[in-house]
Amino acid sequence: MDLAEKTISEETIYEGKIIKLRKQKVVLPNGNTADREIVNHPGGVAILAFKDENTVIFVEQYRKPIDKVTLELPAGKIEKGEDIKLTALRELEEETGYKSNDITYLGKVLASPGFCDEYIHIFKAENLYNGKAGCLDEDEFVNVHYHSLEEVQKMIKEGIIEDAKTICAFGYIR
Amino acid sequence: MDLAEKTISEETIYEGKIIKLRKQKVVLPNGNTADREIVNHPGGVAILAFKDENTVIFVEQYRKPIDKVTLELPAGKIEKGEDIKLTALRELEEETGYKSNDITYLGKVLASPGFCDEYIHIFKAENLYNGKAGCLDEDEFVNVHYHSLEEVQKMIKEGIIEDAKTICAFGYIR
Repeated sequence: MDLAEKTISEETIYEGKIIKLRKQKVVLPNGNTADREIVNHPGGVAILAFKDENTVIFVEQYRKPIDKVTLELPAGKIEKGEDIKLTALRELEEETGYKSNDITYLGKVLASPGFCDEYIHIFKAENLYNGKAGCLDEDEFVNVHYHSLEEVQKMIKEGIIEDAKTICAFGYIR
Repeated sequence: MDLAEKTISEETIYEGKIIKLRKQKVVLPNGNTADREIVNHPGGVAILAFKDENTVIFVEQYRKPIDKVTLELPAGKIEKGEDIKLTALRELEEETGYKSNDITYLGKVLASPGFCDEYIHIFKAENLYNGKAGCLDEDEFVNVHYHSLEEVQKMIKEGIIEDAKTICAFGYIR
């Protein structure tokens, strides 16, 4: 069955600092029409940064949508036109103070394809060295933590780590 | 450092069929203010359904936000007030035609906590038997596929499977 849906009309509801919201009317495979709510997001990167071969860097961060502090890999949005490898190196240094010359692309994941086009590109960073810390965005505050691979696996199973991109990143290196 | 952000004002931009968009002004840990764009989503479930001990059921589905067909676990949104285990059994039957009396909760993941409150609850379903197929939502069309665990691992590494909740689900059972 050909599953594609053709757009017949579109309305932009909101264009904000980060996201854009559109409402589309589409034709379904059976010829009927349906409404689709679509959020456009610039996409992001997440960095699995190894302090040593068994220790990974995490950031603890308050997330307003869930009113909760989460434990996630260093991550951030892609700036318009920015090379994603540079995004990864920039976010790693901004959030943790570390630099790396040894960064590998692991893959990209779709955060929530039902309504949003956000892709998160996941990198592994090794051979870290100190950069200058404290260059976070002016509206960003994080605490840095270090965890062994064994601790990470336990924290995923126990639900202490809930962030999907973070769990996916460890899926790539198993 | 206390990372919480207090809301000082809020505006509802959009209330749709599935998502709600709000813009909030918040106070940051340093006392400055910032804007937050927040999408509320009802949350969903995903089901890792084993046809036999080495074969998992996938659905191929067109995703309008990325204009692409994806390979994902059977999944769906939680209806208001619905028990999430029933959501999982309902979605499994609607999308694949299979029922199960042997369903286990694996954990929940946050799809994109930077702007959205969507949690996806992941279940494992075993001992499947045939239900009645073809009860999809009227705007939903999927093709069912079967893959071995070895094929799945290869498709994740090769980027054929990109969906974050699907990759996370396999992280829980390793």
